[in-house]
Amino acid sequence: MHVFIYETGFVKPTGIVYFHKAMNGTTIKQLAKELNLSVGSVSKALKDSHEISHETKQKVLALAAKYHYTPNPYASSLRKRKSKTIAVVLPEVADSFFSLAINGIESVAQAKGYHVLIYLSHEDFKREEQILSAFMSGRVDGLLISVSEETSRADHINEVLSAGIPVVFFDRVLEDVEAAKISTNDFEGAYEATRCLIERGCKRISFLSIAANLSITAKRVEGFQKALQDFNMKMADTDVLLCSNDMEHNRALIEQLLTQAGRPDGIIASVEKLVTPTYLVSKELGISIPGELKVIGFTNLHAASILEPSLTTVTQPAFEIGKTAAAILFRGLEEKRFILSAQTITIPSMLVERASTRDGV
Amino acid sequence: MHVFIYETGFVKPTGIVYFHKAMNGTTIKQLAKELNLSVGSVSKALKDSHEISHETKQKVLALAAKYHYTPNPYASSLRKRKSKTIAVVLPEVADSFFSLAINGIESVAQAKGYHVLIYLSHEDFKREEQILSAFMSGRVDGLLISVSEETSRADHINEVLSAGIPVVFFDRVLEDVEAAKISTNDFEGAYEATRCLIERGCKRISFLSIAANLSITAKRVEGFQKALQDFNMKMADTDVLLCSNDMEHNRALIEQLLTQAGRPDGIIASVEKLVTPTYLVSKELGISIPGELKVIGFTNLHAASILEPSLTTVTQPAFEIGKTAAAILFRGLEEKRFILSAQTITIPSMLVERASTRDGV
Repeated sequence: MHVFIYETGFVKPTGIVYFHKAMNGTTIKQLAKELNLSVGSVSKALKDSHEISHETKQKVLALAAKYHYTPNPYASSLRKRKSKTIAVVLPEVADSFFSLAINGIESVAQAKGYHVLIYLSHEDFKREEQILSAFMSGRVDGLLISVSEETSRADHINEVLSAGIPVVFFDRVLEDVEAAKISTNDFEGAYEATRCLIERGCKRISFLSIAANLSITAKRVEGFQKALQDFNMKMADTDVLLCSNDMEHNRALIEQLLTQAGRPDGIIASVEKLVTPTYLVSKELGISIPGELKVIGFTNLHAASILEPSLTTVTQPAFEIGKTAAAILFRGLEEKRFILSAQTITIPSMLVERASTRDGV
Repeated sequence: MHVFIYETGFVKPTGIVYFHKAMNGTTIKQLAKELNLSVGSVSKALKDSHEISHETKQKVLALAAKYHYTPNPYASSLRKRKSKTIAVVLPEVADSFFSLAINGIESVAQAKGYHVLIYLSHEDFKREEQILSAFMSGRVDGLLISVSEETSRADHINEVLSAGIPVVFFDRVLEDVEAAKISTNDFEGAYEATRCLIERGCKRISFLSIAANLSITAKRVEGFQKALQDFNMKMADTDVLLCSNDMEHNRALIEQLLTQAGRPDGIIASVEKLVTPTYLVSKELGISIPGELKVIGFTNLHAASILEPSLTTVTQPAFEIGKTAAAILFRGLEEKRFILSAQTITIPSMLVERASTRDGV
């Protein structure tokens, strides 16, 4: 069996995750030792205390400048972070993406001696709000969050940030919040999936989507539509089919899609749970994959290779996204000068082509 | 498509999970109110304090007896449990069983206002020991654990128990530890899978296993061997093939198995991760499923129904096992007279027959 792998992105996942040792490791203690002063005197000199002579202050500041020592106003609050616990809030866990992401997060946290609290929002915004409101009491040192599909406002996350708890979004981010964001290249993933279907001869492609208000959904839809445009394909509003969490309803929608006049000859299932109903409905209707319908799924399922037919996937770097999100959070917790909120990292997905998009294989 | 469902067990999952309101809800406060005494006086009377008159003691004890009130020596320590946090220790999360189990645990914990810490042992006994050693400091009120495949000793778990932290095993239990155990009927699940293959005409069945020292493995192997015996099938030691965590190695083992003289015509993959290599190796060798080889897998994968061919599964009640384990733990935390360590609950698996065991479907 041949598997064709297209790299759909540009950012190398390797090299992102390791920790930089802060260039500036100088402590007050070292300054005090070299100047033959007490730590207290150095501290007071740095604070321009009236208890310290002008001469001593000059000496302290000169040495501090030499070693690039900067007194950090947050250092003491950083030291107070003692829960040694981070929270992970995510929509669900029964999805291969989130399972692998938890694995990645846990691998970093365990190495750091941190504890990991897991909370599931079950795609419910109110529940997500309730979960976050419990973090104000100092229970957690940091938050990793992948928002629910209902989440469009960010007040609850801004409150966590105001309480001094660093936040890292992973996968499902809120673009407008000033916090670190680790995600995959959703636009490119959808673009490459669409191009693959077009190159395999599809004339009418449907894009099965969920949660219109999520930024990852918007980006995937944009990637889909841009590819249609670039390859001069006809576009209709109905090409994007909005599915829900009700699997019976999704099945009915897909059945309707595949029985209508001018039914699609290509489907992109943009979330894992839409793959199974697409396959089952096609089989029931006697529509052969890939002969009459080509299918691509966004999924990390190992079983993709043994489906009937084996499934072409946009495989997301789920483990790496979790690992990077956790690593970045710990840098924010540990490094004085690391500006966590400025971190936006994209780790590319890969298109892995299998039998569901290739005739005569 | 017809799906045949055999119930392989006897215990109904429904009815186990809901909470009994303690029959005995009487508090010291209620006794005090009814007797028109202070709570302190009632408490002292119950402790037979010299500060309380004989007459008052008699009245208090009579009313306490009437309401079946029992002063509980652990009540005050129960009230001190304030972390409002439980720990879940499990081997891995990238497996549909454990994902669903976490969902079940979290659903109960969230309803109770509890926080859930997740730890992965990655099948490593030393790591499991390290994880548990962190619980002594009062970080958690209770522990749910599914042990690593390397775990055969129980010192680390007994230490947690001695520290007064209640423990509930789920799925992978240590039989000899005095703690609650929630699992599925592994013996019957394997027995029914074997019977199914025999009834479908298999003459030589291989059982792909992992982790020989886990009790669930032992029970599944016993169920397999008992069925072979009951149906007068030949038995050889080599019928049970011990796989590992090294997936390349497992693939090589399965390839060896399927190329040897007298290769099996039936395979039971007793853990999810052994399904994919079984299918892939069969396909590579041109061995048709179910024509030349019938396959049953222990898995909760939704995708089982869209495999090529669709897979007959022993479907474990993963969500219910998680939910029940958490519910039982909270009863242990909340109910004075509930003997947690005496709880052993078996929730049955189901054999769901699909195309991988039926010719001409």
